[in-house]
Order: sequence, then C-alpha cells, then structure tokens
Amino acid sequence: MSTPHKPLVILRPDPHPGERIFRPDTLTRLHDRFTVVEPDTEEAFDRALPDAFAVVGQPDLPAERLARARELRALLNVEGNFFPNVDYDECFRRGIHVLGCGPAYAQAVAEYALGLALDLARGISREDRAFRAGRERYVSDGTADSVLLRGADVGLIGFGNLGRSLHPLLAPFRPTLRVYDPWLPPAVLREQGLVPASLDETLARSTFVFVLATVTDDSRHLLGERELALLPDGARLILVSRAPVVDFPALLARVAEGRLLAGIDVWPDEPVAADDPARDLEGLVLSAHRAGGIPDAFLSIGDLVVDDLTLLARGLPPARMQVAARELVGRYRNRPVL
Amino acid sequence: MSTPHKPLVILRPDPHPGERIFRPDTLTRLHDRFTVVEPDTEEAFDRALPDAFAVVGQPDLPAERLARARELRALLNVEGNFFPNVDYDECFRRGIHVLGCGPAYAQAVAEYALGLALDLARGISREDRAFRAGRERYVSDGTADSVLLRGADVGLIGFGNLGRSLHPLLAPFRPTLRVYDPWLPPAVLREQGLVPASLDETLARSTFVFVLATVTDDSRHLLGERELALLPDGARLILVSRAPVVDFPALLARVAEGRLLAGIDVWPDEPVAADDPARDLEGLVLSAHRAGGIPDAFLSIGDLVVDDLTLLARGLPPARMQVAARELVGRYRNRPVL
Amino acid sequence: MSTPHKPLVILRPDPHPGERIFRPDTLTRLHDRFTVVEPDTEEAFDRALPDAFAVVGQPDLPAERLARARELRALLNVEGNFFPNVDYDECFRRGIHVLGCGPAYAQAVAEYALGLALDLARGISREDRAFRAGRERYVSDGTADSVLLRGADVGLIGFGNLGRSLHPLLAPFRPTLRVYDPWLPPAVLREQGLVPASLDETLARSTFVFVLATVTDDSRHLLGERELALLPDGARLILVSRAPVVDFPALLARVAEGRLLAGIDVWPDEPVAADDPARDLEGLVLSAHRAGGIPDAFLSIGDLVVDDLTLLARGLPPARMQVAARELVGRYRNRPVL
Amino acid sequence: MSTPHKPLVILRPDPHPGERIFRPDTLTRLHDRFTVVEPDTEEAFDRALPDAFAVVGQPDLPAERLARARELRALLNVEGNFFPNVDYDECFRRGIHVLGCGPAYAQAVAEYALGLALDLARGISREDRAFRAGRERYVSDGTADSVLLRGADVGLIGFGNLGRSLHPLLAPFRPTLRVYDPWLPPAVLREQGLVPASLDETLARSTFVFVLATVTDDSRHLLGERELALLPDGARLILVSRAPVVDFPALLARVAEGRLLAGIDVWPDEPVAADDPARDLEGLVLSAHRAGGIPDAFLSIGDLVVDDLTLLARGLPPARMQVAARELVGRYRNRPVL
Repeated sequence: MSTPHKPLVILRPDPHPGERIFRPDTLTRLHDRFTVVEPDTEEAFDRALPDAFAVVGQPDLPAERLARARELRALLNVEGNFFPNVDYDECFRRGIHVLGCGPAYAQAVAEYALGLALDLARGISREDRAFRAGRERYVSDGTADSVLLRGADVGLIGFGNLGRSLHPLLAPFRPTLRVYDPWLPPAVLREQGLVPASLDETLARSTFVFVLATVTDDSRHLLGERELALLPDGARLILVSRAPVVDFPALLARVAEGRLLAGIDVWPDEPVAADDPARDLEGLVLSAHRAGGIPDAFLSIGDLVVDDLTLLARGLPPARMQVAARELVGRYRNRPVL
Repeated sequence: MSTPHKPLVILRPDPHPGERIFRPDTLTRLHDRFTVVEPDTEEAFDRALPDAFAVVGQPDLPAERLARARELRALLNVEGNFFPNVDYDECFRRGIHVLGCGPAYAQAVAEYALGLALDLARGISREDRAFRAGRERYVSDGTADSVLLRGADVGLIGFGNLGRSLHPLLAPFRPTLRVYDPWLPPAVLREQGLVPASLDETLARSTFVFVLATVTDDSRHLLGERELALLPDGARLILVSRAPVVDFPALLARVAEGRLLAGIDVWPDEPVAADDPARDLEGLVLSAHRAGGIPDAFLSIGDLVVDDLTLLARGLPPARMQVAARELVGRYRNRPVL
Repeated sequence: MSTPHKPLVILRPDPHPGERIFRPDTLTRLHDRFTVVEPDTEEAFDRALPDAFAVVGQPDLPAERLARARELRALLNVEGNFFPNVDYDECFRRGIHVLGCGPAYAQAVAEYALGLALDLARGISREDRAFRAGRERYVSDGTADSVLLRGADVGLIGFGNLGRSLHPLLAPFRPTLRVYDPWLPPAVLREQGLVPASLDETLARSTFVFVLATVTDDSRHLLGERELALLPDGARLILVSRAPVVDFPALLARVAEGRLLAGIDVWPDEPVAADDPARDLEGLVLSAHRAGGIPDAFLSIGDLVVDDLTLLARGLPPARMQVAARELVGRYRNRPVL
Repeated sequence: MSTPHKPLVILRPDPHPGERIFRPDTLTRLHDRFTVVEPDTEEAFDRALPDAFAVVGQPDLPAERLARARELRALLNVEGNFFPNVDYDECFRRGIHVLGCGPAYAQAVAEYALGLALDLARGISREDRAFRAGRERYVSDGTADSVLLRGADVGLIGFGNLGRSLHPLLAPFRPTLRVYDPWLPPAVLREQGLVPASLDETLARSTFVFVLATVTDDSRHLLGERELALLPDGARLILVSRAPVVDFPALLARVAEGRLLAGIDVWPDEPVAADDPARDLEGLVLSAHRAGGIPDAFLSIGDLVVDDLTLLARGLPPARMQVAARELVGRYRNRPVL
C-alpha cells in the first residue's frame, strides 16, 4: 500500500475534523510526503495497521493491536490528553514515539491567562458590565482595588508547557516568580530566574496565582480549602489547566466572601449548570474552556504533525510535538474535552 | 521662612488630596528635607512665593507672579497635563525646571492597554457577559474570532511615555511593531527594533492599534473616518490616551458594523451620556477613564516629587519626572481629568 | 547490596576525577540517597551490575553485559560524547535512559564564543599583543576594522545545546540571526525569532559565523574550501564545537590572505604541532580547547547527575541532563577530549 | 546668508575631519535642509555667527560672542566632552540647546566593555599569547581561574549613557547588578532591576566591576588604594570611561600581586610611556583608548546631528543627542581625546 518513498500514515484526528487542524498547504505537504489512509471503520483501520509508519490520532491500541503494527514508528496524539486506551509500555519497549500536541495550545493558553490576570488586576470585565448598566465609575472612583502586575509576587502551580510559555510574557513585569512543581528539581527553575517554592509558600506569598497543573492522582484537589485559605486577601487566581486540581466549592466560597478574585476557564462539569451560583459572582471572570482552542492553535497542530512526521521519515528525532515521558504518560487523569 | 538647609517648597497638589499621592513615609522624607508650606488662599500663596525653591502643583503662574518668585528653581506638575495658566517661556528663560508626572501613570496605562488588547483578541469580557446570561459557548464554539498577539502586526500611534512603557510588555509576543510618531526621527525607533511608518501604513497593516498620542492642534481627529477605514476588518483598536485624537462617531459606526473591535478608556464627554449608544455595542470593551489613575500610580507621584526635589536641592538635575520640552509644553490641548 | 530505599549507583566518572565533577555537598546528597559503588576493576564492575539502578560514566556496555544489568534504569554519560562502546539500541529497547552532560558545558561555551566574537570584532587580543610590543595605536588609528555586533548579520551553524545557550546572549545585540540546522524544521527556528537558512545563504550573508555543529558522517568538512569562499571578506568565524566540521587548511589559508578573522578553540590534532603555522597568524585568536571545560561547568555535571538520579528514583523523568535521541546517538563521531 | 527655509548651520567639527562623522548621504541630507558654512578662520566664524541657527562643534563661545549669535538655537558638541570654553549659563538662559554626542559612542563602548569582561573571565588574550609562544594548556589545564558571567555579582560604577547601554547586554547573564551612582535616586535603578549600592558595597561584593564614571572634581581617584582593597581577590575590573577616576599605581600594584585582573582602555598619560611596567603585566588586557572610537560610532555622530537639527528646525525638541544638564555641564573635567 505504501511505497518505499512515501511511508503510510493513518489519519484518525477525531475529535477534530481534519480541516480544523490542517491548513490546505499543510495537507498538501502531508500527502506529498506520505501515503495517507483515513479509515472510517475499525476494520479498515486494522487492515492499514500492519504497514503503518505512524498513526495520527488516538484510536484504541492495546497490546494485540500494536503487535500487528509491525512498522509503527510513532503515535501522534492530536487531542491533547493521553487516555489509557493505548498500551504505552509496549510503545516505549518498541521504541514507538508517543507524541502529544500540547505545545500547539501553550501560547494561546499563556496569552489568555495573562489576559485574565490583567482583567482581575484591573476589573476590566467587571467595569465593562457596570458601564453597560449605567453604573460606571470614573478615574479613581473605580480603581481602589486596581493593582499593578509589575513587581508583583506571582505564583505558578506547575511548570510544564503552559508555564514555559507564560514565563516570557510575565518577565517584562519583573515579578517575583515562585514556582511549585514537584516534578522538577529546584535548579531547573533557578537557572531561569524563578524561585522554587513549596505549594504552601507559593500560595501564601503570591498576589497572582496561575494554576497550570495537569490532573494526576496526586494533584486532584491540590488546592483544597486549607490551601486556598493560605492566599492573601485580595489575591487573584487564574485557572486555565484542569478543574479537578481545585476544590471548586471552596474556591467559589472564598470568592463570594470577597477575599479572592478568580478567572476560571475550566469547570468540574461542562456545560456548567444553568443555575450554578458561579454565574452571579462579581469576583469572577467566567470563561467557557476557551483558553487553548482557538483557530490558530488548532491549525498549528497540523504543522507540528507534518513537521515531525517528516523528521521521523528522515531518521531524525521529532522536534515540535511533546515527547511523552514513559514515567508520566500513565499518570494523567484528564478527561476528553467536550 | 526657610532655612538654608531646608529649602521652601509650596505644596498645592490639587486636584489630588495630599494623601493620595504621598505615602506617609514619603511625606516624612519631604518634611525632613524641605520647609513645606501649603497655602490655602491665593494671598498665602503669594506671601510664600518670593522664598519658594519649588512649587508642587499647577497654580496660575503668569509672568508677574513668576517675577516675584525670585528663588524658584522648579515647578512640579502633579496633575498630568500642562495647562496654559503658566508662563512657560519665562520659566525656560529663567532656567526653572518644568516637570511633569506622566511617568507615574505610564506603567499603569501600559498594563491596562495590554489587558484591553488581550480582551479584544480573545473576547474575554464579551464571553464573561454571555456566561452570566447563560449563553456561554464552549471550546471552539466561542473562539472563531480569537487571535494571538504573538507575531501580530501591531501599530502604535505615538511613542512617548506610554509607548515606551508598553513596548517591553509587547516584546515577548514578537510582534511586528509599526510606529507613527511625527516628533521622532526614524532612527530612534529603528534602534529599538521598531518599524517607523506613516500613519496610513500603520493603520492599514496592523491587526492591533494602540492609540497613545496626546492632543495638540495637529492631532485632533488624527483618526478620522478616512483613517479608520484603512484598518483591516477585524482589527482591534485600543484607545487609552485622549479622546479628541479620534473621531468618535466614525469609530463607533465602524464598531457597530462589526468591522472593528475597540477598547475605549477615554471619551469625548465624561461622564458619558446615559443613553449613549456605545453602551450597547457588543464590539466594545467600555472603560471609564481607569487606565492610569490607580492607587499605585498616584502614590508614585509623591516619590517622583520628593526624589527630584532632593536632587535639585543637591544641585543635580531631576531624574524621575518628565522634563517638559520648551518646544512642546505650549502645544498640549488636554483638558483636566474630572 | 542495595537496600530498597537506596538504589545502587555504579560510579565510573573517568576521565574525570570524582572531585572535579562533584562538590562535597553534591557527593553527600548522592550518598544520602543512593548506595554508591566505585568499582576499580572490570570484575568489580561486573559484580555490581546485576543490582545497578544506574551507571554514571561510560564503561563498555555491549549487549551481553546489558543483559546482566537487569535492574538498570539509566546510563549517565559524564564525558560529553557518546562513544560506540555501548549497545544503545538495546538501551532504548529496555527503556534505559541514556543521558548526556552536554548542558553542563553549554553556558560556558556560549559565553566563551561571545567573548571570541567580541575579540574578533574589535581586535582585543591582537591590540593587547601590540601594546605589549610597544606598537599600540590610539583611538581611531587602531579601530579601522572594528565593527559592532549590534544589528549585525550573524550565522549559526547548528542549533543544539550550544546554539540555544548562545541565542539569549546575542539577542540584546538585535542581530539578524540566520541558522543552518538540517535536523530542525524551519518553524522551530522561526518561533524563536531566528531565520532558517541554507548553509550557503548562512555563510554568504553573515559577518559573524558561529560553528556549533557536532561531528557526524554528514558534517565532516561541512565547511570546506567552497563554503568558506562564500563568506564575505572581513567576516569573523568562531569555531567552538568540533574541528572536523571545518577544512582547516582552507580555513587557515583564508585567514592568512586577510579575508577572514577566526577564533579557534578546537583543532584537528591536539596538542597542535609546535611548528603549526597557525601559531603566527595575526588574524586568529588561538585557544586550546578551553571553551567548555571550566571548573563551574565540571562541577555542574555532578549536580545534573544527582538531580536526575533523584527524579528517576522517584519514578519521574530526568529533567536536567540531555536525553539522547535514539535516532542520533549512533551518528556522533566525536573523539574523546584529551 | 540663510534663507527662511534653510537655516544657517556653522560646521566646525574638529577634531574630526568631516568625512569621519558624515556619511555621504548624511551630508546630502544636511545640505538639503540647511545652509552650511564651514568657516576656516575666526573672522569667518564671527561673520557667520549673527545668522547662525546652530553651531556644530565646540568653538570658543564666551558671553560676548554668544551675545552676537542672536538667532542661535543649538550648540551640537561632536567631540564628546564639554570643555569650559563656552558660557553654558548664558546658553541655558537663552534657551540654546547644548547637545552632546555621547550616545554615538555608548554602544561601541558597551560591546567593548563586555568583550574585555569576557576576556578577563576566561583568559582569552592571555592564552592566545601563550599559544603563540608554544605554551598553551589544553582543556582543564588552562581554565583553573575561568569563571562564568552568568549569575555573577557585577558592579557598575556610574550609570549614565554607558551603563544604560551595557545593562541590556549583561541582562541575559542574569547577574546581580549593583550600581553606584550618586547622581541618581535609588528608585531609578530599582525600576530597572538593578540594586542601588554604596561605592564600598559595590566594590566589596562584585566579581566584575565596570568603571563607567566620568571625571568631575568629586570622582577623581574615586577608586583609590582603600577602595581597590575592598575588591574580592580574583575580581575583574574593566575601565573604559576615564583614567583619572582610578588611582593607577594602586591599581597596577594590585594586578601585579595577582589579586586583580583588569582590562584598561584609558590611561593617565596617552601615549603610555614605552617603559611603563603595565606593558608586562600578565593580569592586564591592554587597550589603547579603542572602546568608543570606531567607524560606526563616528559615522553615527553625523546622523545624530542631522536628525536633531531637523527636529529643531521643525520646532521640535531634539531626540537623539544627549541634552546637557544645566547642573552638570560645568562639572566635567574630561580632557580632549588625542
């Protein structure tokens, strides 16, 4: 099916329609260099598997199926989360690259997180609502709780793709950046001018806290009632990674008390219930899982995929997608994004 | 009245109450180093004037009054605009420093302008409103018009205090930054990695346009109907300097047509009329002159004042406030901020 | 031999004496967390191997030896080059991490490369020699060939560890940075503000060229006579990676003709012959393989090692050493550094 | 002599020949916009003076001559130092701009200073000499005293043009930057991420010290024997501003003792005596006043001049040359550069 010069790539990019992640010229590049099969049944998928050089997508790949994929060199996940429907151990044993598309979203999330932080710092959306209701307050009458980001104490909970993309955006504000990331040795942070800190210290000393951690068994409700109570009054919390990292009732209670302002992009249940009291909290900026999934981010997925497939076909290591770590890929507990 | 060691400073900081611009310890520093007089009548002011080393504030200072201020070395404007109630020519002839407090506001305005730009890029306040109304759209359903700031074409109209403060905040987004500033030679911009451009080119090629120009006879309605029509569809305009620079009816018409998104902090008449149609435009982020006047900015004015008074008393040039240019001080047409 | 809580680490750090790469407190950390064996014979090594969690060093590890190392999780190379005395394929099959200490040297090499570039730009060492000989020339008499790095056209040949460390040091000079690296897709470079370019274009358009490539079968004499002839007259070439990348006779001939200035840290044969004509070339800055091997770099190797061993023992992926790529580890042709 | 549209400019750029500071197209711009007179006698100068809009150069301008220069708006110094042959007080009274060309040299000096610092950090010129003498030492044999600039304690003595140009070049090394500048309030430094410090603290805590101060009555021998003794052993001192700031015998004694390494570009007497013992000190990098006067810097002077003349003729303030401060212009004690 494939020719020696055009390795076989199986394309199963759901939940994305192909045109969301591939620009026309990216698709052309893909087809120029690879034989592309888009199986619409499991049977068709199974027929293509023995010759497949790579699989783009996240179909079920248990051990027995992988055993038949004798030529498989790479699994390119374009959804954003690693689900347990693949025998990752077998992939690593076989030297099959397991690649994720997280980097495609990181800049979009970082820019959005900064936008939420500046909104919370200055009351932008709150005062826009007031203006529309004829209740606007001019100049100093409406800025009593406005604060600068310059020189602020800023905490990052987690320092992976998102943190590394956010860091340069924050740098010109010259903040003191404390980072809690139990997966990284302190020296990695110090070399970048960051202050490694415990979770408690990060929370207790930060005016702005960005929650950037992914969900594992260890990080579920990492920010519970006790931890949130460590935040200084008037702190701003930006949640753009995964909802289960935070105890939502505790978070919302603290916002309702006026002790915390929060920008929330991810929710325990999406869509959020119509009568969820969060909808009326003045101290929130409400956002419907919008931080990462923008056209430019989706379209960059296709570029990452084709660039890395091209490298792999040339016998080179991938350079754009995230290489899943053998030690971590089984720990994630993120759910599919609806 | 003053002693040789404690030069006399007349303090008339209106419209600010003194405690807005002086932290307690700043005030202590001021009184430690200077004899401070706060005249509450014009007569008291006139009595203090002959011995005054400096005047903090913007009282009427026509030629005849300046003539009596024989020891005057500096006029420190803490309002933010230079009004024509001072004989500036005489100040310059006498070598009296005319200093402005613009730098105190610049960081606050720059952070706010970036916040508005990110809001417009991603629909943060618009979607917050929708969420509160139960109309939120999840993930890609609500991000069709979302764009990145990274790599964007960005235009700056004016490159003074505000532009210089905004520039480093934009730098990590690696934009192409076109600047229109008729008061600066192109080389000044090029040396900082900026692209000098005409007004028309700046507008026609920018997805984001920051209007940072002050009002002079030349810049009134600098952005009229013709100029706004040059903007690409879907552009984002951020107005944080002075309303008269823009033709508001033309601006609002363009937003109403859905061709432009705008974040507006300054208005032709403040307060804005209750029935102003701008209040209902979905394409706006509405803001009530809130960009600069935040507590931290006000309090830094006092620091600027005391630091520069201290330098002047030591026979050194000022280093923190903005030195008014003889050529420009008479050109400004800004009105007092209510 | 090892206890459950203190995994066994075999330490064979030659060519380094242990104290060169381990600070006393680093060694204490190592011994606190691991059972450390330092075998002084091959037999002792073989006895320790079956229980070894990790090997620090680069002993011969053919397939049969690896087969006995049933617990082995990581091979931590502290020499800096990957030699073919290890069955890397088997390591990858087994999921044994193959880690290199390149990052320990990268900052030292980057700073040195910048130092050489500034020396070549301004004639620092040449004029120091002249001064000592009583031939110094003051002010403009000795600066006719001096050039700025600011705004210069700069080429990087290779963009791995060294390039990534050098890039931020060059950034404030606002150069146009062209990069030739056949292992990276252009987008990786563009995202960092770099200009991807062919080798010929990089050479033909650069005033400063940094040679940062490692040696493979493909890169031997990458810069031959034809390529060097592409450089503009007066160009400055900085060679800090590996000598075989450059055709030395062609390079030295070009310097002798006065068409090129070069800073050379690595040589085809080290030590260089006593009568090597390079020793007398005025257009050279001569350096004896000094760019990377400085005390601070050596000592950071120990930190990298202990930090990554600690992560691995906690079931986390390494974060400080360089993870060898399956595709590349067999391609390197670097020789041991004497 | 001049027409209304082409104001009269007197050009007396000595010690520079005109072609050193004006590119051909810069000269064309100058002649297009201005009537240019180049008087070759004092009489010719006096004849042109009454109509002169600006003087480029530093001719004697005592009060009586200024009195005849009724149209004079600007004095543009192209030598680099302000000498006492001008009645500056009268210039300030008259609102005549006094402009200096310091900014033209600042980048060149900053790059050179960094080059000297990296040379001292790594022994570049010292080991180049050794290599030429057949005494080179390979790898770790010659790097025992090599140190990184990354993370180093760095002191700046003076923070004017030179400091502001050097600062961004040092920033990517993430040093702790202590600054001693008695003309600046601490907040100006803190806002830029610098640590304001006393002279003694700056010296005692810095591994690298850049001497960037100009000469006034206060700064002569600012670094005397007592101050130099505060430096930690092994410190690196870079002197690129003015020799009288340092007590040279004390400096050279300390270098001779092996306690200090120094890069010296300016000398108490230039040319330096043939038998000056400095010529033989291994711990020095010797440089003959070469830091600023390079072709690119000279040629930028012409650009600064024509850009600012153009602004002034349009009724705008200058934007490129340094505006001399009334308080400081009489304090400088720099001598002409030979």
